[in-house]
Amino acid sequence: MRTIYPITTLFLATSLLSGQIPEPSMETAECIMCHEMATPGIVKDWERSRHARTTPAQAMEVEDLARRMSGNSPPGEFLNTSVGCYECHSLNVNDHADAFEHFGFVVNVVVSPRDCAACHPDEQSQYDDSKKAHAIANLRDNPVYHALETEAIGMKMLDGDSLSSLEPSSHTAGEACYACHGTVLEVDGMRTVETDLGDVEVPNIKNWPNQGVGRINPDGSRGACTACHPRHGFSIEVARKAYTCAQCHVEPDVPAWDVWKESKHGNIVLSESSHYNWDAVPWKVGEDFNAPTCSVCHNALITDPLCDEVLAERTHNFSDRLWLRIFGLPTSHPQPKHGLTTVLRNPDGQPLPVTFDGRLAESGLLSAEEMQERQAVMSGVCGACHSTDWVNGHFAQFDAAVAEIDEMVLKTTSLMSRAWESGLADPSNPFDEPLEHLWVNQWLINANAARYASAMNGQDLAAFKYGWWGMSTNLRKIHKEVIEGQEAED
Amino acid sequence: MRTIYPITTLFLATSLLSGQIPEPSMETAECIMCHEMATPGIVKDWERSRHARTTPAQAMEVEDLARRMSGNSPPGEFLNTSVGCYECHSLNVNDHADAFEHFGFVVNVVVSPRDCAACHPDEQSQYDDSKKAHAIANLRDNPVYHALETEAIGMKMLDGDSLSSLEPSSHTAGEACYACHGTVLEVDGMRTVETDLGDVEVPNIKNWPNQGVGRINPDGSRGACTACHPRHGFSIEVARKAYTCAQCHVEPDVPAWDVWKESKHGNIVLSESSHYNWDAVPWKVGEDFNAPTCSVCHNALITDPLCDEVLAERTHNFSDRLWLRIFGLPTSHPQPKHGLTTVLRNPDGQPLPVTFDGRLAESGLLSAEEMQERQAVMSGVCGACHSTDWVNGHFAQFDAAVAEIDEMVLKTTSLMSRAWESGLADPSNPFDEPLEHLWVNQWLINANAARYASAMNGQDLAAFKYGWWGMSTNLRKIHKEVIEGQEAED
Amino acid sequence: MRTIYPITTLFLATSLLSGQIPEPSMETAECIMCHEMATPGIVKDWERSRHARTTPAQAMEVEDLARRMSGNSPPGEFLNTSVGCYECHSLNVNDHADAFEHFGFVVNVVVSPRDCAACHPDEQSQYDDSKKAHAIANLRDNPVYHALETEAIGMKMLDGDSLSSLEPSSHTAGEACYACHGTVLEVDGMRTVETDLGDVEVPNIKNWPNQGVGRINPDGSRGACTACHPRHGFSIEVARKAYTCAQCHVEPDVPAWDVWKESKHGNIVLSESSHYNWDAVPWKVGEDFNAPTCSVCHNALITDPLCDEVLAERTHNFSDRLWLRIFGLPTSHPQPKHGLTTVLRNPDGQPLPVTFDGRLAESGLLSAEEMQERQAVMSGVCGACHSTDWVNGHFAQFDAAVAEIDEMVLKTTSLMSRAWESGLADPSNPFDEPLEHLWVNQWLINANAARYASAMNGQDLAAFKYGWWGMSTNLRKIHKEVIEGQEAED
Repeated sequence: MRTIYPITTLFLATSLLSGQIPEPSMETAECIMCHEMATPGIVKDWERSRHARTTPAQAMEVEDLARRMSGNSPPGEFLNTSVGCYECHSLNVNDHADAFEHFGFVVNVVVSPRDCAACHPDEQSQYDDSKKAHAIANLRDNPVYHALETEAIGMKMLDGDSLSSLEPSSHTAGEACYACHGTVLEVDGMRTVETDLGDVEVPNIKNWPNQGVGRINPDGSRGACTACHPRHGFSIEVARKAYTCAQCHVEPDVPAWDVWKESKHGNIVLSESSHYNWDAVPWKVGEDFNAPTCSVCHNALITDPLCDEVLAERTHNFSDRLWLRIFGLPTSHPQPKHGLTTVLRNPDGQPLPVTFDGRLAESGLLSAEEMQERQAVMSGVCGACHSTDWVNGHFAQFDAAVAEIDEMVLKTTSLMSRAWESGLADPSNPFDEPLEHLWVNQWLINANAARYASAMNGQDLAAFKYGWWGMSTNLRKIHKEVIEGQEAED
Repeated sequence: MRTIYPITTLFLATSLLSGQIPEPSMETAECIMCHEMATPGIVKDWERSRHARTTPAQAMEVEDLARRMSGNSPPGEFLNTSVGCYECHSLNVNDHADAFEHFGFVVNVVVSPRDCAACHPDEQSQYDDSKKAHAIANLRDNPVYHALETEAIGMKMLDGDSLSSLEPSSHTAGEACYACHGTVLEVDGMRTVETDLGDVEVPNIKNWPNQGVGRINPDGSRGACTACHPRHGFSIEVARKAYTCAQCHVEPDVPAWDVWKESKHGNIVLSESSHYNWDAVPWKVGEDFNAPTCSVCHNALITDPLCDEVLAERTHNFSDRLWLRIFGLPTSHPQPKHGLTTVLRNPDGQPLPVTFDGRLAESGLLSAEEMQERQAVMSGVCGACHSTDWVNGHFAQFDAAVAEIDEMVLKTTSLMSRAWESGLADPSNPFDEPLEHLWVNQWLINANAARYASAMNGQDLAAFKYGWWGMSTNLRKIHKEVIEGQEAED
Repeated sequence: MRTIYPITTLFLATSLLSGQIPEPSMETAECIMCHEMATPGIVKDWERSRHARTTPAQAMEVEDLARRMSGNSPPGEFLNTSVGCYECHSLNVNDHADAFEHFGFVVNVVVSPRDCAACHPDEQSQYDDSKKAHAIANLRDNPVYHALETEAIGMKMLDGDSLSSLEPSSHTAGEACYACHGTVLEVDGMRTVETDLGDVEVPNIKNWPNQGVGRINPDGSRGACTACHPRHGFSIEVARKAYTCAQCHVEPDVPAWDVWKESKHGNIVLSESSHYNWDAVPWKVGEDFNAPTCSVCHNALITDPLCDEVLAERTHNFSDRLWLRIFGLPTSHPQPKHGLTTVLRNPDGQPLPVTFDGRLAESGLLSAEEMQERQAVMSGVCGACHSTDWVNGHFAQFDAAVAEIDEMVLKTTSLMSRAWESGLADPSNPFDEPLEHLWVNQWLINANAARYASAMNGQDLAAFKYGWWGMSTNLRKIHKEVIEGQEAED
């Protein structure tokens, strides 16, 4: 058996040889003096990061596609220091409700996307229009989804023979739905914390800690870059690995990871990833990797091995290469035009992209032309390895399969409608009876599994893991109950 | 933290030093000229492959156990070039319905096992007799399994109060069952594809793309080597990793991956795999790896560290080391003698290896003697690390546990028989009612989980993940429904 | 793509250079002569191990925190040889019922924790008081748990219309519950084994092989070090990786691995583990790893990067840093004071840490003060990377969320009580009816998922994977059945 050569990174070695490792600012040096004792793990993590080894000025010297910093006007005082504690935590303290005086410095607790935008403005502005950035409102402020959320995670109250759901508590919500969607960070004065260095006054932040993608920050901004670039390495390697996306995009409701893992793409990446160059910018197909992770298809800047041709531009709006939304609510539909989806109104007047029987909220969704444009971008990524004919074949199969899956959902809903009409179920809340749970599972879990499986070739999620077998079982059960309930009434 | 040293592979380094990297043929060089722009990912993937770095002549010089190429008479014109695009895609164009004229060359789209057999004839002939090679017919042409397939993935039709299943559509079948089992590739004339290089005429291949193990190719051959050796690296490393097998052999119906992952074998491999030599031929136990992946036990050529003793011969018939078939349909049974299982007839006349109540289709299944021979081969693999007594102890436990699991299935079936006899369920189709779905789950999902867990030591799949707890729940539910249904009739 | 440099380990290289690789003893050398043919895999595995490359005398020279061997008085005759076959397998043969004469040596088959204690006494004594060490008795000898075990994995008997469970068979028990909990190894004379070297007489050990954490060994000792340090490398790297714990601590009943995998901790480790120094002692936060595996939080010796401060002492009692037991049986409760839990008596007189309605077996459980002390140790680990305020915030959320989850369980139990009182279910065995299975799932599977998710931030296990959605579905189903059963009676 061979093993790996335990020297430090090539990046580090190169930097050391060329003598270019920058000094931290005086302020950051002072932060580190305490924090390398108080929280040594994150200090060390940062020391290995690109932020610690590059100044904004150096980052701006990098040309063309290799450039990692989209901004051209970082704050002048930080131009020639490494990007350290003070540089990020003091950037816009006047906008931050969580800013506080801390051992002589005014800093804020939560570094927000708006702060990161000082050096990375393109990423922040792309992200800001995404569904991720609106992930709280899209769930909490949508009465239909919120009713489902309440049924799912709200404490149940038994009153005599009746069982009802309370509004979800903030802590359960913060651990379940809003762990991914993000919480609203509210500052409520200060509180005293006992530490090894004595009592310290810190802002009292409610619904904290949280790294959800739609987090509302104490400066009013939306999102958390740390959801994918975890603190304090902020690594591009981590963000490019599927484990990152798999924190939220997992079975049973959003089984992207699970499908990918059992696809040929996942098979190759998981088998060969130790040979990849996870850090290269641009990311060169065939040269740096030979099969895609989530990031390759959905957001990274991808080029051919010679960097002659950009196969896909970098984007931090993760819908930019998506045309059809296969996360069916309850059926698939064109992607919404904008990230804020609570404004959608379907023909029944509900704040949903489709009606329960499949009619579209057209004005808020992509047109056929816009869909085609986005699909062309994705096809360009596929085309890096696959012939045009292969790609066309895949998408033709996908279109036909998704149409069938939607049909299965609509048939299930038509049975539910019979139940609601006949009084077998109560439509006033369509989510709070055992039969209705089965119907929710049909579209939220089983049909989504089958659609994700179709998009990314996860055969078992199409067949026996949730997918078609599950859809067939649900439909049989609902059918039996509705027909027998009907007979009982006759 | 240490990191890996980003030089290229030792193999590459060695080849470069010895100056032996072969030239591609003139034809392949021409392919690459366009395709390094058209599909750069696969060109680069191939460039790193053994095929790009070795000629058949060089491969044939390797002696004895280290030899990777089983053939001795590759096509003479390709003897001294690397094994490139043209060498594989032009090999037997006269046999290929998908052959076409492409920028001056006649090539075919789908390289088949029969093509690979030009250099790797032993692998192809072993494979050709396996259940994998017959995976389409074994499912599609078996009326019992096909009825289950139809219930599982066929579109459901609501007609008044009745719910029935249509024949599965080709696209849903191609994404679910036949993504693993393989599709039938049929060429229906040519079609025009718009590419960056203008319109290109290509064969119109139905049910393509697909890499299922039993694929019927346009040259009439069976199988897809790329199912396990993905294009265009055709790597032995990938095929040896469990992620490859895990594309199809996963929970809930065939949970081999899931059991292995939670076994001590999986624990060790997943923890230490970065120290393994994944590319060595032969594969030396202890030296190149210290715990088995799927490939070690089921097909790879394994020797002791000094290559003095062959512990197991290489085989591409993945049943060669298996005696009992634990994928119970519905109970375990001796492995079929041949890969084509539709010819089996159980004592009830069904095309199944066993009757629903456990009687064997004896003439088509291994005899006790043949079973013993195969088990001896597997025991030889186990014996590389485990004492004979340990191995015997494991298999004694396995035999007893599987017998019990089969008994649980038979008891469930006896309750179903009561339901069929009493009219509680309709036996004309034994798969299409909620109660019957539960019975299918009992043997296809829960009992299989428990049996796989027994074979490879996956304790949670034996206990609470599908296994015994699931079997007990199913049995309790079916029992209650049958008894209550009976009482209602009394 | 880069790849790894296939030289041998640095450790090996260093040892070779310094000429310090010790000789094996004469006895071990003789073992190896046969066994490098008989079982080459484990011989080679051992040759790469620290045991093969270090003598006890060398191990005792290592000072302070870097020392790996807790003992100071290993057997004198083994002081200056490597720690080989004979050193471990001959250590206390007089205590071993499995000792036997083997080619001129008296050795025993099973090396037990008591044997390992010759060099590692602290580890053994810590372990010996843990729940792991009592894992058999805690399940088998507790009549409540044993009744559930019997319902889960006991063969079912159909007698007319009645369905009952037999006592679990030893082989099924050994593959399911006791694969993790451990089996009782009983020696029943000798048996003859046919090997390549002729017939060999070996002890006839029942319930073998097994590596469960609570195994009762032939010398009367409890436990199996090999559960986490697998034979014959006994590697600290393997034990530190989450794949090891994941053998037993997995969904659906103990989903620690599954929660960790989808947490930010798991995300970072799985993405960056190839850069970790998995072998360092002490294990330096930030330097050797930047996010925790199970071992970091629960048992490893952790220091700051300069080894100035011990953040957590090494322990092999895996509850030492735990205060609340979230593996709810049926609700959460303070950790038991001692590893043997069958002695607990709740206020209803049951051998359980809590009553079904949540009252504590107080005298056997940690006091509030003891809980606080243990939580402080864990907070010290968290504090290596997280601010005190962050850690407090996490635990405040955890406390509130777990209280809610417990409340969901208690409400489900109150409905079951109605069912037991009204005769809808039979309380004489609370586990053997479909409705009772649903209730068991509520606390054993769904509530445990939600509690583990809360402890370690696994959002989907809190929401849709078993967690809250599953709890809500179970509660709705049980409620419907109980209310309708009641109505039927009225």
